[in-house]
Amino acid sequence: MSDVIARCRLLAEATEEPGFITRTFLSAPMHQVHDHLRGWMEQAGMRVSTDDAGNLRGVYSALSAEAPRFFIGSHLDTVPRAGAFDGILGVVLGVALVERLERRRLPFAIEVIGFSEEEGVRFGVPFIGSRAFIGDVDNELLARIAGPISAFGLDPNRISEARAGGDSLGYLEFHIEQGPVLESLGLSLGVVEAISGQSRLDVLLEGKANHAGTTPMHLRRDALAGAAEWIGVVEREAREVPGAVATVGRAAVSPGAGNVIPGSVAASLDVRHVDDAVRRDLVARLLRCGEQIAKARCLTVSWAQRLDQPAVAMDSTLTQMLESAVAHRGHPVHRMASGAGHDAMIVARQMPAAMLFLRSPGGISHHPDETVLAEDVAAALDVGMRLLEQLEQRHA
Amino acid sequence: MSDVIARCRLLAEATEEPGFITRTFLSAPMHQVHDHLRGWMEQAGMRVSTDDAGNLRGVYSALSAEAPRFFIGSHLDTVPRAGAFDGILGVVLGVALVERLERRRLPFAIEVIGFSEEEGVRFGVPFIGSRAFIGDVDNELLARIAGPISAFGLDPNRISEARAGGDSLGYLEFHIEQGPVLESLGLSLGVVEAISGQSRLDVLLEGKANHAGTTPMHLRRDALAGAAEWIGVVEREAREVPGAVATVGRAAVSPGAGNVIPGSVAASLDVRHVDDAVRRDLVARLLRCGEQIAKARCLTVSWAQRLDQPAVAMDSTLTQMLESAVAHRGHPVHRMASGAGHDAMIVARQMPAAMLFLRSPGGISHHPDETVLAEDVAAALDVGMRLLEQLEQRHA
Repeated sequence: MSDVIARCRLLAEATEEPGFITRTFLSAPMHQVHDHLRGWMEQAGMRVSTDDAGNLRGVYSALSAEAPRFFIGSHLDTVPRAGAFDGILGVVLGVALVERLERRRLPFAIEVIGFSEEEGVRFGVPFIGSRAFIGDVDNELLARIAGPISAFGLDPNRISEARAGGDSLGYLEFHIEQGPVLESLGLSLGVVEAISGQSRLDVLLEGKANHAGTTPMHLRRDALAGAAEWIGVVEREAREVPGAVATVGRAAVSPGAGNVIPGSVAASLDVRHVDDAVRRDLVARLLRCGEQIAKARCLTVSWAQRLDQPAVAMDSTLTQMLESAVAHRGHPVHRMASGAGHDAMIVARQMPAAMLFLRSPGGISHHPDETVLAEDVAAALDVGMRLLEQLEQRHA
Repeated sequence: MSDVIARCRLLAEATEEPGFITRTFLSAPMHQVHDHLRGWMEQAGMRVSTDDAGNLRGVYSALSAEAPRFFIGSHLDTVPRAGAFDGILGVVLGVALVERLERRRLPFAIEVIGFSEEEGVRFGVPFIGSRAFIGDVDNELLARIAGPISAFGLDPNRISEARAGGDSLGYLEFHIEQGPVLESLGLSLGVVEAISGQSRLDVLLEGKANHAGTTPMHLRRDALAGAAEWIGVVEREAREVPGAVATVGRAAVSPGAGNVIPGSVAASLDVRHVDDAVRRDLVARLLRCGEQIAKARCLTVSWAQRLDQPAVAMDSTLTQMLESAVAHRGHPVHRMASGAGHDAMIVARQMPAAMLFLRSPGGISHHPDETVLAEDVAAALDVGMRLLEQLEQRHA
């Protein structure tokens, strides 16, 4: 059996920035990644092509030509100075599953797909690969990416052919959790039931900048003291809502001098939950609290919503099959939400999608220290094989 | 009688930056300020000179040559984009008091002094004018300022002659309050009993930057949430200590992205009080609270003290005389601390010093909107005249 972790480490050497793993959409090192994967795929008996969105696609034929197709994939691009497993692990696991079949053919084809773009680094637009896969690249986006597509040796005018056609059984994505939950529970694997919806807002608190020495405490309109009270509320309220996360990640204090009372604070608010109504209700409550705090302190508060992205549920049937595969292989079943976006969220618009998370040691991701445990990779492979068996039984 | 406010407005036209009032130590427009003041001083019967620290000095002789001298002064320089009254009002009021004497000679001389430097803008070192006046310019500082002194037409090698010699009765400084206290109390004038001591610290809270979507609330080590809790404590504790002010004016959040849990916050802490023991005790308490908060949240906290400047008391006898002058002229007596530093703080090391604050409308200072009310200027002049009468009676 191939060593999945060693392959990910080998692919990590394909980078735009020596000493780090940085590999953006259609960058030169992506050719090396394709070359390695193509070799392994062909050795496992797959026909390999690159579509005109830059997605690498390896097809393992079924017993018959008319059989439906099951997709397994994730993305090949990285954030700057990334780890070696985010995205690519899901593709390498797909290839390893096909290898495990040892050329035995199934009543459905398997297509392992390495999406060209998920992180949104190069154009500030994420999910370009999976959007092409479901036929959702509009002309404006296409105009922006046409040059790099041509430069990579592909034809931007044929990007619509990247769209998955025919009869599909669904899509499975293996991905590292990128968070600390599975580790904190002592679990190898988690079954993703939904990808959380997200609200992002800019919140501005304004008071009055004043001399830190000459303005008594009771005559201040300190925007940072107000923001601090509100940040405390954000944390407290989010803790009260099971499954919710709320984060103030940015708080720019103006004028920001040690001897001047802050006149304004420009903060961000990020709220996520799998239930859109719960999320929107929490956001509204946090903003109301902000208004109350501002009023009591003679501050003003204003906000602008930057994102209101609904949650995406994974397919219930495929997810139940994945759960039963997890249980069948002797692992505890843990359902969880994904707080981050993934290709599965895009693909789910077109076909049944399911996701399996692998434990992230230390919860570390988007960092060179990102890793994965060999026992968790073995568990994921076992579960993947069991899922293929279940699909085989169902479609025999 | 001259119009003190109109004179301040006229002097405000001497600026390095058209459209704003910006006049730093020994800058070219300082010559215009000297020229105007020299004219008014000479018209009032004073001998005028500029010492080699750039201080403008007008002496109104006494009845006899051996008489002691009473100093009235403040500073002529400004912060960038300043108002028209900070500092210079005290000098213009000194000239106006001498004018009111209408050439009547007293048993003591009066020297009106316009200090060349107080704000610390040009060299990052404040109080250069008053430090030269008390003979406290060391060779290192002299080496830094020698060039500009020469360029202004003065002799840096003779800076020691700027030192006040002979028998002095004391120093009086009129200054705008630069804060909102007198206005909030409906008072024209305040008698400064002391200039607060100051502590300045850099405080660093460190947690762990993490993904805002994938890290549940209970597994976070959010440095900003910890800082927010501590900022709340700073405000609450300072409010409990009469006369204390404590300010977090700076809080730099890292990495500072909306979708990343803050890994660290670098904050400032500024604490002031007239009683040094009370101030140091408050600082120690705030740091202990910071440690407790950090511990409870699995954060670390560290700090570095940047300033521990003791309070400076004004002279009790001269301050009592000033109070009785305030009362004699029918104004309520309000004793207060100055939360900002002033030349009087430096001069107090060498002679009895007293300060009279004039109300700052809106508490505004270091801003083009800085102003002063005509009725408060009239009140200050009246009180100043009464103080001169009291000194005359005492030294007759």
